[in-house]
Amino acid sequence: MYLTQPLHKSLRESPGATATVFGERRRTWAGFVSRVARLAAALQAQGMQAGDRVGILALNSDRYLEFFYGVVWAGGVINPVNIRWSPAEIAYSLDDCDTRILLVDATFREHIPAVRQQSRSLRTVIDLDGGDGDGALDYEALIAAADAAQDAMRGGDDLAGVFYTGGTTGKPKGVMLSHANIYSGALGTLAAGHRPDRAVALHAAPMFHIGGTGLTVQVSARLGTHVVIPQFDPVSVLQAIEAEQVQETFLVPTMIGRVLDDPAFRQHDTSTLRIMLYGAAPIDSSLLERATTAFPAAEFIQLYGMTELSPVATLLPGWCHTSEGRKAGKLHSAGRPISTAELRVVDPSGDDVPVGEVGEIAVRGPTVMQGYWGKPEQTAEALRDGWMHTGDGGRMDEDGFLFVVDRLKDMIVTGGENVYSAEVEDAVLQYPDVVACAVIGVPDEDFGERVHAVVVLRDGAELDQDALFRHCSALIGRFKCPRSLEVRDELPLSAAGKLLKYKLREPHWQGRERRV
Amino acid sequence: MYLTQPLHKSLRESPGATATVFGERRRTWAGFVSRVARLAAALQAQGMQAGDRVGILALNSDRYLEFFYGVVWAGGVINPVNIRWSPAEIAYSLDDCDTRILLVDATFREHIPAVRQQSRSLRTVIDLDGGDGDGALDYEALIAAADAAQDAMRGGDDLAGVFYTGGTTGKPKGVMLSHANIYSGALGTLAAGHRPDRAVALHAAPMFHIGGTGLTVQVSARLGTHVVIPQFDPVSVLQAIEAEQVQETFLVPTMIGRVLDDPAFRQHDTSTLRIMLYGAAPIDSSLLERATTAFPAAEFIQLYGMTELSPVATLLPGWCHTSEGRKAGKLHSAGRPISTAELRVVDPSGDDVPVGEVGEIAVRGPTVMQGYWGKPEQTAEALRDGWMHTGDGGRMDEDGFLFVVDRLKDMIVTGGENVYSAEVEDAVLQYPDVVACAVIGVPDEDFGERVHAVVVLRDGAELDQDALFRHCSALIGRFKCPRSLEVRDELPLSAAGKLLKYKLREPHWQGRERRV
Repeated sequence: MYLTQPLHKSLRESPGATATVFGERRRTWAGFVSRVARLAAALQAQGMQAGDRVGILALNSDRYLEFFYGVVWAGGVINPVNIRWSPAEIAYSLDDCDTRILLVDATFREHIPAVRQQSRSLRTVIDLDGGDGDGALDYEALIAAADAAQDAMRGGDDLAGVFYTGGTTGKPKGVMLSHANIYSGALGTLAAGHRPDRAVALHAAPMFHIGGTGLTVQVSARLGTHVVIPQFDPVSVLQAIEAEQVQETFLVPTMIGRVLDDPAFRQHDTSTLRIMLYGAAPIDSSLLERATTAFPAAEFIQLYGMTELSPVATLLPGWCHTSEGRKAGKLHSAGRPISTAELRVVDPSGDDVPVGEVGEIAVRGPTVMQGYWGKPEQTAEALRDGWMHTGDGGRMDEDGFLFVVDRLKDMIVTGGENVYSAEVEDAVLQYPDVVACAVIGVPDEDFGERVHAVVVLRDGAELDQDALFRHCSALIGRFKCPRSLEVRDELPLSAAGKLLKYKLREPHWQGRERRV
Repeated sequence: MYLTQPLHKSLRESPGATATVFGERRRTWAGFVSRVARLAAALQAQGMQAGDRVGILALNSDRYLEFFYGVVWAGGVINPVNIRWSPAEIAYSLDDCDTRILLVDATFREHIPAVRQQSRSLRTVIDLDGGDGDGALDYEALIAAADAAQDAMRGGDDLAGVFYTGGTTGKPKGVMLSHANIYSGALGTLAAGHRPDRAVALHAAPMFHIGGTGLTVQVSARLGTHVVIPQFDPVSVLQAIEAEQVQETFLVPTMIGRVLDDPAFRQHDTSTLRIMLYGAAPIDSSLLERATTAFPAAEFIQLYGMTELSPVATLLPGWCHTSEGRKAGKLHSAGRPISTAELRVVDPSGDDVPVGEVGEIAVRGPTVMQGYWGKPEQTAEALRDGWMHTGDGGRMDEDGFLFVVDRLKDMIVTGGENVYSAEVEDAVLQYPDVVACAVIGVPDEDFGERVHAVVVLRDGAELDQDALFRHCSALIGRFKCPRSLEVRDELPLSAAGKLLKYKLREPHWQGRERRV
């Protein structure tokens, strides 16, 4: 398996079809592949050898796709940098895997001097938007001057990317994924869904995230069209769907909510949308109801996974989002393992827990990462006998559906009882006027930890804690109900849309010991 | 990628669901895997080492599936023997790849003494139906006595099967397919179709053929149910579809025709059928029309490929079988390359021919075989720079659809003009009263070769050659029209449903030189 295969296919099967759309800029597959091959030559001319890492620090664009395929075509390994990071964090990730070439766009150009100062590895900066200062090379000039390189034809277990994860706890770790990891993950995901052939797909979530790579490979494998917006905002999403007759996209539930809430929603034709992939979090019933009404022709598909799994492990199919699926109680599930993922729920000693009981989710199969860059101990801890231990808590029901209850470290231990915050959040979210919610454990003299809710309310609404407690205790055990409450305007999310609970916990735990 | 992955998945995701149905015998996934693991132990006890080949000579059954997974679980390599072969041919294929253990069923038990006499390699015979003579071991007794073996966990480039092809020309060649070959082929095929999750699938075509392996892996990857009948006959197919509410099956067009023609058709409920896969030959318009009317809920999907491609290369999707697709002229296409297949049409020097022109079909990708067992020269001839040269002639249109015009050796050269028999057959088949047709080249003093049609007529019909010629010349160039004619009761087909033209050509070419 080699990630460049779709590019070769496109030259014979659909050279004139549209490969990328970015604003007014459109490129055919023939044009795209030509740029990829010339970018590859330009990178090699800058000293890039087979297996070398090349970084990018940029908003989404068609050039991000050129970067992805150009590096791989040249025989290299991509290192897509988290755009939320500080220069110090960026320098850390570049140095960690010895990334010497970095592509940057106009938005993040200002970080470069500080990154250069702090990084030992960085040598060459290529400016996607044609920088003229700081010794950066001009991306377009490099491509214009280069002759097409031959595809290095790396594949199989050869490394294709190092993806830095975490930042929610400890130092980021570089997840090493091979060609076969990423491509088998894409095929497994496609095989589980009913995805249109040659689909027009919209990249709205950040492309530095593994989800961006996943969608990229899934779209390319079908020789579809990549429509790219620089970053998520509701109006850009709506405009792109209408203008390009987008058939599928990937959003996180918060993004779906913001699209629906936007006054521009009614002014745009979104009837072409067939597939709404979502992930990073389950979708709550009331949002789903609004979303399925708003996109009546779209099949909703939840994906659950993580970078270490390239990234999809389970898929919740469309029918689980219908009233039938909801009656069957599957809507809050993360779905069933896809063909490429073998999934177990294990206890701390690594044995399977009984069906329906909670344990750690572990996954085996061709999508499991090669390891963490330069971290043999953390690799050995995560990968045991080929099983990736995810750190997520979950249970599997008798139909093979996985319910993710929590990151294990998010579990609250109160008065000796385990409380899974996801279950509490479900209950709180059913309370009128609550639009978003995060439940965490905070220090408590009597109980060790106390169940604490952080909520976002509908505009103008007010809430008292007793009322919320009574509401919750009708739905879940009293020991699980929030004992304290905090109202905020919004919850802290990562660029990939993941809730950053550690940011909520920090102020409560300062000076105390907790696995935050 | 490891072919046993679905078995491990099933134990956690659906141990109680039905894995196999064969007549009255039904087994859950848990029961099936237990038998597979015990069969593996029994094979190892018979001296089977990792990488050893194990053969089978049997009609379809649930035990055929146990054989497939049992050998692979034990770390071995399957060698499914063509059931149409003579003892001498069977012995040839066993010896060619040193197969020492052979499973046989009651139907083919009678061949064993002759095979034993002629084979150097064969040591152990296991009788699926519990033979007591000839020193054969009893399959059920072996399983009953064995403890479950651990999965050998072979995968990736490890060999999983040696599949003997040909017999239409020269000695059969053992096509070596790896775990990754077969599994990526299955995922690529699933990714291109809209296949139901956990489908109930019917094995009606012979399982020794690579198509049987393909369907096996595709069904298992979704933890579907395998319904098996011993061999194709229309009534068994209809009964199985009704009894098990079959959702998908694979047939060859002749089989589809026979199902529709059978008086039993109207007496069976086939409304559950969602996916009708077909292959080995295109479907002609009139048969398709009858078939889509008869199975209104089924999507028709044509698969084109060959053993060396594990086996699918292109897929003609459902919409091409609708009136829209037929208007677009795609019905006679073999479809577009699936994600895992990069496809070129090349001239004899290996260069791409222009779009729309005929050349040899060549394919590259993760499904391309490892080579022919013990035949480095023939391997080198077929595999050049990673490209499998199929020997099939085809052209690709501007939309990336492949039209297979002929096996290259089936091309007729008459008066210096190339005639592709497929095109002539299309024209002849539109003649009233012709129900089947094969066009071949026969020796001709004036033209070198003459276009000759072998036809099967509807019962009681008569046909004169001049009328047929006039009919054809209204549709295709006069030089392509049949100049001579032969009426037969049926055409010679291989067990896999492929037309054996060499059998039609033989009597005409005896004593002369032609690449038959």
